[in-house]
Amino acid sequence: MVHWDSLWINVHLATMCDGDGYGTIRDAAIAVRDGKIAWLGASAALPGDYAADQTHDGQGCWLTPGLIDCHSHIVYAGNRSDEFEARLNGVAYEEIARKGGGILSTVRATRAASADELMQASLTRVHSLLREGVTTLEIKSGYGLDLQTEAKMLRVARQIGRDLPVRIKTTFLGAHALPPEYAGRADDYLSAVCEQILPALVGEGLVDAVDAFCEHIGFSAAQTERVFQAAQRAGLPVKLHAEQLSDQGGAALTARYHGLSADHLEHLSAQGIAAMQTHGTVAVLLPGAYYFLRETKLPPIAALREAGVPMALATDCNPGTSPMTSLLLAMNMGCTLFRMTPLEALQGVTLHAARALGLQDQAGSLTIGKAADFALWSIDRPGDLAYAIGANPCYASVFSGSPRVF
Amino acid sequence: MVHWDSLWINVHLATMCDGDGYGTIRDAAIAVRDGKIAWLGASAALPGDYAADQTHDGQGCWLTPGLIDCHSHIVYAGNRSDEFEARLNGVAYEEIARKGGGILSTVRATRAASADELMQASLTRVHSLLREGVTTLEIKSGYGLDLQTEAKMLRVARQIGRDLPVRIKTTFLGAHALPPEYAGRADDYLSAVCEQILPALVGEGLVDAVDAFCEHIGFSAAQTERVFQAAQRAGLPVKLHAEQLSDQGGAALTARYHGLSADHLEHLSAQGIAAMQTHGTVAVLLPGAYYFLRETKLPPIAALREAGVPMALATDCNPGTSPMTSLLLAMNMGCTLFRMTPLEALQGVTLHAARALGLQDQAGSLTIGKAADFALWSIDRPGDLAYAIGANPCYASVFSGSPRVF
Ligand SMILES: [Zn+2]
Ligand SMILES: [Zn+2]
Repeated sequence: MVHWDSLWINVHLATMCDGDGYGTIRDAAIAVRDGKIAWLGASAALPGDYAADQTHDGQGCWLTPGLIDCHSHIVYAGNRSDEFEARLNGVAYEEIARKGGGILSTVRATRAASADELMQASLTRVHSLLREGVTTLEIKSGYGLDLQTEAKMLRVARQIGRDLPVRIKTTFLGAHALPPEYAGRADDYLSAVCEQILPALVGEGLVDAVDAFCEHIGFSAAQTERVFQAAQRAGLPVKLHAEQLSDQGGAALTARYHGLSADHLEHLSAQGIAAMQTHGTVAVLLPGAYYFLRETKLPPIAALREAGVPMALATDCNPGTSPMTSLLLAMNMGCTLFRMTPLEALQGVTLHAARALGLQDQAGSLTIGKAADFALWSIDRPGDLAYAIGANPCYASVFSGSPRVF
Repeated sequence: MVHWDSLWINVHLATMCDGDGYGTIRDAAIAVRDGKIAWLGASAALPGDYAADQTHDGQGCWLTPGLIDCHSHIVYAGNRSDEFEARLNGVAYEEIARKGGGILSTVRATRAASADELMQASLTRVHSLLREGVTTLEIKSGYGLDLQTEAKMLRVARQIGRDLPVRIKTTFLGAHALPPEYAGRADDYLSAVCEQILPALVGEGLVDAVDAFCEHIGFSAAQTERVFQAAQRAGLPVKLHAEQLSDQGGAALTARYHGLSADHLEHLSAQGIAAMQTHGTVAVLLPGAYYFLRETKLPPIAALREAGVPMALATDCNPGTSPMTSLLLAMNMGCTLFRMTPLEALQGVTLHAARALGLQDQAGSLTIGKAADFALWSIDRPGDLAYAIGANPCYASVFSGSPRVF
């Protein structure tokens, strides 16, 4: 006699298991025990002697792993629609910056917000993702640029994981931009980041990974390496905003540090791809930023595919370059703009997104022993998820085995 | 003593009245009698002696006219995500067409569907629009290409208007493509369209306007003119799919027939703009198709703006070139891709979209005497609607004075 806490019947599965494409199992069922997947297969193959405390009818939906948004800056205060509007009305970027716009306006607003205000501002955006079946979400700091505010952001991120049915992974992005009080003293700021801010945040248990913005308008590769070394001392994995606007060799650097992922990658070189291939670094592609900034240089998708580098897709949700709160739309943009296939797009928000967060043993595919995080979809076939633009066919979602209400 | 059926208080208004930008009135109220706007203004200006049967607290939301999607092919059967997936997996368009793909696969599926099936397939998409505050929706025929199926499509469109709280305008698009049974005999097909199909549909009260696809892969300007003449004989206004892939002079032709709108317009000429300006033809811009087809030639937004041609924005919701069911996303694409301003984007789905449907006296702005169709938004300012990507801040909506439930 097999005993399960719950059983979903009358579903088609896309297991998204590694090496198995969609991993389609039609007319299937999936069982949960202790919040984890305990059994899955065709309904006809259900054991004769099972008992389930709860049985849920999936109404013929497709059931996939819960979606994973592996790159977001979703916790922030303020609203930069005014800059968006000013730019479109012809105001020059320099003028906006002179008036205190750009990333530093978000830093000011985030510093000024109370933790409660920051939580309220962020929750609307988080709900938008959850409604689309997102069950795991990465949240970066990086709008504080001082210990107090970086800690506030990461505490809010942790709080979201306690208050809502979603798995949160936090990333410390102190090296996001230079705070005004360190103008002209980038290396001094990085000393503070590496020697004071990061250790303090780690001491409070707020950091799951460490990130930096490696770019000619951000930090150099040498400066990035200082941050990576600090992460290494703290025993934390690294990831990097790399090769978005120019080739700084950031992806190869990340690979050398056995980083989880290199993200953006429009200007990634062949050497960068080779290094990522060697070290198993995930390529996190962010078509929302590409779209919003009207970039024209595409990331080297075909070469990444050829090299077998796992590709993930994420929203990059942030107020300046990707005010996007739809992971399904990121999938469509991955296909429409980057020419990824719908299968690659779905792998990019499940299997490979899990790897980009170091969660490959716990999430990202329907595999016995992994967390029972599911999304159920009113669709004809898995490819529909990347095809539709602006629809949300999410019928229900399940987190650690429990149907979600939020 | 003024008597109203209902009153919305605690809102900020963006009236979208002609010539008045957003028409912002902060801390406002708006009153309804007999389904129409009876009063609006600052709360402080409310008359001392009013009585309202119902008072609704708008919770500090922004209240705009209900959104208007003035160009859609939302009623169809079948699902072409398989073609999308095949194309991205490297299958050539010719191969897909040879296997019966493309628009004719939608024609086959729509012909085969019962009216009920067609309704069910369409309702999911319509709901997606309604959730974003759309209160008026244009629906085109054009996947039947025979009397029976064109009638079925338009009856379903009318039924949507009876079953759901949304204003439907129907457009006959018999000249959408050449049906297979008329292969090589386009003029014979147009004779059937003009002399049999259109008159029969008009006799049944199914047609509010007449459209055609004027393009080198569609119908010529001369053929389009035959359709326009038939519309004229039936006393119906015309509109046109014009200048999407090449300059056929379609916009100028439409203007000459005092058409409501010319739509797409990527290849619009200076003469076309001048003709539209002279005759007050609305330019309906469809960034979803531009995005999905990865076009690079932009419609001449600056020249249209300069000429004072009203610009509308719509989803063009259709399975082949714009599988999009978000008018808010069309607004963002109008700004991001076409460089419209957020104000132009909001005018494009309210004031000017109403004009594109001949509804300028009944909808599209908060004006006394117009229909009380509202959308209420949890936003900081009207520009947020075009700025956000993939969010839906619609808090509530109102159709003909009644809060919508659907
Ligand atoms: Zn980022
Ligand atoms: Zn169209």
